[in-house]
Parts: sequence; structure tokens; C-alpha cells
Amino acid sequence: MERINRWRSHGGWQEVWRHDSAETGTPMEFSIFLPDGEGPMPVVWYLSGLTCNWSNVTEKGEFRAACAKHGLIFVAPDTSPRGEAVPDDPEGAYDFGLGAGFYVDSTRAPWATNYRMRSYVETELPTLLRQHFPMDMDRQAIMGHSMGGHGALTIGLRNAARFRSVSAFAPICAPTECPWGQKALGQYLGPDQETWAEYDACRLIEGGARVAALKVDQGAADGFLDNQLMPGKLDAACKAAGQPLELGLHEGYDHSYYFISSFMGAHLDWHAAHLTA
Amino acid sequence: MERINRWRSHGGWQEVWRHDSAETGTPMEFSIFLPDGEGPMPVVWYLSGLTCNWSNVTEKGEFRAACAKHGLIFVAPDTSPRGEAVPDDPEGAYDFGLGAGFYVDSTRAPWATNYRMRSYVETELPTLLRQHFPMDMDRQAIMGHSMGGHGALTIGLRNAARFRSVSAFAPICAPTECPWGQKALGQYLGPDQETWAEYDACRLIEGGARVAALKVDQGAADGFLDNQLMPGKLDAACKAAGQPLELGLHEGYDHSYYFISSFMGAHLDWHAAHLTA
Repeated sequence: MERINRWRSHGGWQEVWRHDSAETGTPMEFSIFLPDGEGPMPVVWYLSGLTCNWSNVTEKGEFRAACAKHGLIFVAPDTSPRGEAVPDDPEGAYDFGLGAGFYVDSTRAPWATNYRMRSYVETELPTLLRQHFPMDMDRQAIMGHSMGGHGALTIGLRNAARFRSVSAFAPICAPTECPWGQKALGQYLGPDQETWAEYDACRLIEGGARVAALKVDQGAADGFLDNQLMPGKLDAACKAAGQPLELGLHEGYDHSYYFISSFMGAHLDWHAAHLTA
Repeated sequence: MERINRWRSHGGWQEVWRHDSAETGTPMEFSIFLPDGEGPMPVVWYLSGLTCNWSNVTEKGEFRAACAKHGLIFVAPDTSPRGEAVPDDPEGAYDFGLGAGFYVDSTRAPWATNYRMRSYVETELPTLLRQHFPMDMDRQAIMGHSMGGHGALTIGLRNAARFRSVSAFAPICAPTECPWGQKALGQYLGPDQETWAEYDACRLIEGGARVAALKVDQGAADGFLDNQLMPGKLDAACKAAGQPLELGLHEGYDHSYYFISSFMGAHLDWHAAHLTA
């Protein structure tokens, strides 16, 4: 594992690392914010959306002030394997392939060799990072945006004992029912929709999965709201299942980091309250 | 004047506008953050550094939370005229020409036609914007980074009655004595160094100029510290002249927006205290 950059920021270090992933078979990069102090410190995992890598939230997310205040380590992985040998969408579409791993372990050629972002984020990366950084693995939270909101919700729901709190900005709430999700799951997993269910937050909740604390914020002016994100389906699934959900709908806000950064501080305050309770 | 984009953010609107500038003879773009409310509101002018346009601070500056809290309008102009007809450094260097207007009114061909960033920022833009936005022109502050820190200091010193507070991150403190400044002033103004003095904060202070409140923060790990920025010369000039200066030197911080964003909130709190006193 090699540190490829670091910057002093907000009373801590914003670092970027590269390592060879056994899961994806490629070098992978992630960013990590380390507040000053010995630790061990609680960890917040942040999963990014379509087209993003670690840099988007690291540059535009406005998370460091709150992480420094609360003493939270903040990790931002990439959204897919990358490299010349990694297959991409044949037409170079933004919503499949590179930058669009959907936090899925693919089971179909040619994707299955590299597209193992579920196991990478869920298992390999935490196992690696706990050896290198002062992380308190008994105090973890997970959050994300859009496709990464889907990742945070589904990883959180499948690993309820690991995360004290789960939150998302404008998540893809029901991937099995929207075009982005159907395209990705259909190609990564094949046509048998039974195999898709563990990658759909609503299906997981309907199947009995629960998380300790759940918070979602959504911009009302988000152009993807009705046809891709569908927070109403998550709300209905939570209500039917008795899963508490703090859902905020915000007039005028869109899908961009101008929205995310506006609510990042409130999300991190909320995670910190659960992580340090 | 045409609004080309806007985003809801931090309880206000982050907007980008384009207009035709009489000073530069080109279309110019700027960004403006407008907190909710009727106003009139105090105005903070933010001048960016070499290579930047409005987008750098707008995406990475982390200023909106503090501006929303204090009710401050925040304006970020471009750093030079742009367009195919605008002459650039013959070798395309980053430190002269496009992206490097140095907040100077050039007097030399071929630069003098378009490179009038002093008059643009100092006069044309405020005159235009006060007609369109709820600005309280009796409560203005100015700040900037690097080349823009130089701009903020020199515009502030030349217009002391207009600005209640002046601040900078890693400013070029003595342009007449550093390579960046000598290259730019030599080409924009010619070899007569007497004409450079009004574009040098130290010279202005030595010549009797004063500002009401002055704050500078500088990263100690900034690679440009000793050969380009020279905050020690500003400190000495202020001490000799009795100009109060709050100068902070910060271990580990470099010249990037990771540094700027770390101290943006403190600068805006400080400006707000002067603007709302």
C-alpha cells in the first residue's frame, strides 16, 4: 500500500492511497481523512455515485470540518475497478462499467473478473485499512450519494451489526425498479432477478433486514428523483416494516455536490451522535 | 447580464453569471452566493489565484456555510479576460496572460486592450452588481488567495474607505520583489518600476496606505512561501508603519484549497464581525 498524496487540512491529514486489490485484480485508490490524535477513532465510510472517484467528495464534500470536530476517520473508495484491462460499457456509457460498479459482485463474463466492488468495499478494504490506520472497528458508520447511497443502504442492511448508523444523499432506493439499476444488475448478475434482491434496499427491508439508525436526504429539484431514485419506495418499505427512517425532502436542491455539501455537516453530526454514544 | 447556472446550496443560491465587460472587451463570468433574505446584505469579494476562474473557490472553498450563517453575499470574479482574441503568454506559461491578470490595468501592447482587471474588479463589477443584487455597499470586505491575495491587499489598500476588512490566504506580499510579480508587472506595465508600486502591498503601506482591519494566513509547508509570497516583508512593512496585522503561520499546510478551506470559516467569521459591527 502506497500513499500517493497528502494535504494538511482542517487540523488533520487528507491522504490518498493506492493498493493492489485481490478482489478487483487491479490497483485501487481511496482517500482517507485522519483527524489529529492517537485514536482509535470511529470510521465513516462514504460511497460515491456514478462517474465519481475518491476526488469528488474529497474536494467538494465539505466533510473535514465535522470529522475534525468529532474525531471521525472518513474513507472514500473508488466506484469501480479501473485500468486498460478492465472491461467497460461497449458504448462508454456513464452508468455502467468504469465509474459504475454499483457495489456489486458480478457473476457474469466479462464483468465478474474485476467488478467485485461489494467484496472490495464490504470486506477487503476494511480488513486492510484496520491494519494501517487507528480505526475503532466497533464504531463504524456508512453513507453515500446516489449509486453510493444505494451501496451504503444495502451494505448497511446486510451488515447491520457492523454499522451504528447508515445515511444517504439522494440514494437509488429501489435499483431493481429503475433504469440505472436494471441495466447494471442485469449485466453484472444476469436476467434472474432473484439474484438482484440483495442489492436492493427496499427488497432487503421487505425481507426482514434492519439497521440501527437510518437517515436519508433528498433534493426536491433533483432531476433523477422520480425515475431513478424513488425515495417514496424506501419510505413505504420502512413504514411497512417498522424500520425507523429520518427522511428529508429539500425544496430547490438538485443532485450535485452543492446539495451534498449543504447537508454533509448535519449527517456527520448525526453519525457522531450514534458513534460516540 | 445573463445567469448561466445556479444551484440551491446551504440555504441560499450559488449562481454563475456572464456579462460583457467594457473594461476587458470580453465576456466575463463570475460566481455569486446569495443567502436567503431580502437584504441589503454585506458583500465579500474573493479574488482567486493563478490558473483559477470562479469555479475553484466555488467548488472547493467551503465558504457557503459561513456566508449563510452571517448573511454575506460572496462574489468570485475570474482572474483574467478570456477568449480567442485575448493575447496569452507566448509559451502558454501559467503565471502570465490567461488566468494571470494580476489585478492590474496594463499599459503596454498587446496586453493593454484586454488586461484591465484592476478597473474591472475595482470599479466596473461593483457598479454593475449593485444594480442587480441586494448589496449593502457600505459594508464590503475583500479577500483572496495567492495572486488574488495580492489583489485583495492592493485593492483594499488603495480603497481603504470602501472596505471594513481585508484578508488573504498565502498572498503575494511583495510582487515587485518576486519572480511572479516581476514577470507580470514588467510585461503589463513595462520596465519603469515606479509604475509597479501601486500594485505592491508592501510599497503601498510604506507609502502611507492603511486598511481598517487586516488578516493573513499562510501555510508553513507552502512551496512558494520564501521565493514568491514573502509574508515576512508584509509583516515588517506593517510593523514599521503601525498597520495592525493578524498574521498566522500554520505548520504543515500548503498552497492548495485544502489549506484555504481550512481557514475560510475563520476568515468569514472575522469579516462578519467587522461587517455587522
